[in-house]
Amino acid sequence: MRHLTTMASMSVEPTPISFARGAPSLDIVDVDGLKAAADAAFTNDPARTFGYGTSVGYEPLREWIAASHGVTPEHVIVTNGSMQADAFLFEALVSRGDAVVVESPSYDRTLLSLKTQGADLHALPLEADGVDTAAFAELLDGGVSPALAHIIPNFQNPAGYTLSAAKRAELLSLAREHEFTIFEDDPYVELRFSGERLPTMLSEASGGEVVYASSFSKTVAPGIRVGYLVGAADLISKIADLATAAYISPNMVAQSIVYQFIASGAYDRSIETVKKALSSRVETLAGALAEKLPQASFTTPEGGYFMWVTFPDDVDTDRLFTACAERGLAVVKGSDFLLDGAKNSLRLAYSAVGEDEIVEGVDRLAQAVNAL
Amino acid sequence: MRHLTTMASMSVEPTPISFARGAPSLDIVDVDGLKAAADAAFTNDPARTFGYGTSVGYEPLREWIAASHGVTPEHVIVTNGSMQADAFLFEALVSRGDAVVVESPSYDRTLLSLKTQGADLHALPLEADGVDTAAFAELLDGGVSPALAHIIPNFQNPAGYTLSAAKRAELLSLAREHEFTIFEDDPYVELRFSGERLPTMLSEASGGEVVYASSFSKTVAPGIRVGYLVGAADLISKIADLATAAYISPNMVAQSIVYQFIASGAYDRSIETVKKALSSRVETLAGALAEKLPQASFTTPEGGYFMWVTFPDDVDTDRLFTACAERGLAVVKGSDFLLDGAKNSLRLAYSAVGEDEIVEGVDRLAQAVNAL
Repeated sequence: MRHLTTMASMSVEPTPISFARGAPSLDIVDVDGLKAAADAAFTNDPARTFGYGTSVGYEPLREWIAASHGVTPEHVIVTNGSMQADAFLFEALVSRGDAVVVESPSYDRTLLSLKTQGADLHALPLEADGVDTAAFAELLDGGVSPALAHIIPNFQNPAGYTLSAAKRAELLSLAREHEFTIFEDDPYVELRFSGERLPTMLSEASGGEVVYASSFSKTVAPGIRVGYLVGAADLISKIADLATAAYISPNMVAQSIVYQFIASGAYDRSIETVKKALSSRVETLAGALAEKLPQASFTTPEGGYFMWVTFPDDVDTDRLFTACAERGLAVVKGSDFLLDGAKNSLRLAYSAVGEDEIVEGVDRLAQAVNAL
Repeated sequence: MRHLTTMASMSVEPTPISFARGAPSLDIVDVDGLKAAADAAFTNDPARTFGYGTSVGYEPLREWIAASHGVTPEHVIVTNGSMQADAFLFEALVSRGDAVVVESPSYDRTLLSLKTQGADLHALPLEADGVDTAAFAELLDGGVSPALAHIIPNFQNPAGYTLSAAKRAELLSLAREHEFTIFEDDPYVELRFSGERLPTMLSEASGGEVVYASSFSKTVAPGIRVGYLVGAADLISKIADLATAAYISPNMVAQSIVYQFIASGAYDRSIETVKKALSSRVETLAGALAEKLPQASFTTPEGGYFMWVTFPDDVDTDRLFTACAERGLAVVKGSDFLLDGAKNSLRLAYSAVGEDEIVEGVDRLAQAVNAL
């Protein structure tokens, strides 16, 4: 009786649901495959797994990445996650006051990292088929001479949009003509669950006009912290020197595990598992939104973790954020990803939630919108 | 016959021996213990092992480090190796032009990192019982106001010397009076194989005058890349923000493995294995040097990886380095660790070589000296 009384007197808090976390749920991480990969790594190559190594990373993984991009290993450096790769790249290529083109909206941590480096950011609108290349051309014609253009081509964070083939070609052409570097930041590339895969700008580049970054956070696990850069050999060599000074060498244990995870075939299976789950989740999310929030507009993503949802102009997402939080729902305001602008969008991440949670989460979101 | 002819016509290259590598030989890395630790980490705590986590590191490891230093966890950040910790610390505490006191000789990578940060380095002589505190007091009395003093208290790299208890107390007293921070850089502390362990300056500090760094590179394995800082909570919080911007979170997989390695008891056993091997090696090295190179002077270290060997003034280590290399022996010149000065010392690392290699290596060194 005492137990029941206590229960009844407690305020009922809803179980938290998060559409905020751009991370995989644990059920789509292949823990058993990773156990086997660690065992293989420690058994097959203990000397290189447990030794210092050098700042370019674990050689067999470096070679695999190089081969998968059709380049030789001196074009590749494997780092402690791709944010760290970004930081080295910005240190190498961006000086205080340099113009850098970014997408709007774009990943908040990258924007912050560029600001810290002293970049003069020029934000161009992101459209459903990628960055506004006409606005980009106009900016260049107006005399802005960027050191770098940061582009997330596939299933962009936060918008979920994908850069079209035509715009990829246009960007390459602009980069050649105006001599800037495209930073092709592509952590979600393997997570396409519908539509056709497009060639990377790196693979279409004629010279050193593209530096490419990706990561194993979304295909293996975030806690493994393995990312990489592919670019011109002299740039990679310069970045390797920065990496040596920063940490001698990246995590060899983690990189050796990733390599064995790939070699065993678990990597390809893991990607299939992740894509299947994300595909079902986005279908559930899109269906629930259409049903419960017909006033919201969105483009259903063809891959990745994120959907960008825009509400009518009178919906203030600062207030919506609070109304969601009161209902145990975490979301990220669109304004967190913008240098300035729109107040009526949210980023919904469907990577960390199961389908039941998605249905319940959209219910709470609809209640929150209706309560404003 | 063809085989023998080929052999005979080849020039005979001696098997390379390295007294240059400040790294453990693979036989003193507990590969089986690490396999078991990885399995336990992935089984017991997959969510925190494979998730992003936060920049302060894997919480159970952070708590263990805090407890081992008698502080609460907010005083600790666990990083991707201790060089990375150094870099964050220098970013937080050292501005361009700030005076920083260093030991001479000292670890070359730390000196470089401080120079990159724009520090105005003041090198004080290192004596067999640690930094010359009288010279330090004189420098302070002369009006130099350092932001930081970098001190490697135990089995210093490169000299192998240990800071005495009396000098530890003196440094703390100077730091309090002159309001600078002591950076107690202590990666070798667990590797004492003779003599008595001295309390850390951190443990004797009354306030925030000491920031302490250490690492699992020498007690687990370098490739695991796990280091840490212990310091004032507000400083650690500032460094956590720098770490978030640099890499979101450090390697959770590696930190979780280290935690399980400790929890299983393998860590304590590993330290005993390492100490026993290093003790035998240093005995062999000291014996061989006394026998083959009576003109060389050295202090036998009580722990760690390194012995500093000084030759008579007429021995030029640039020429000696070359003469060693010609005999298949790698050494590091003392001048690599000095801001300026002595040309007649070498650092001999005995961490990566077996006892047979040590005997053979000293033979080659003696031949090289005699050939000058």
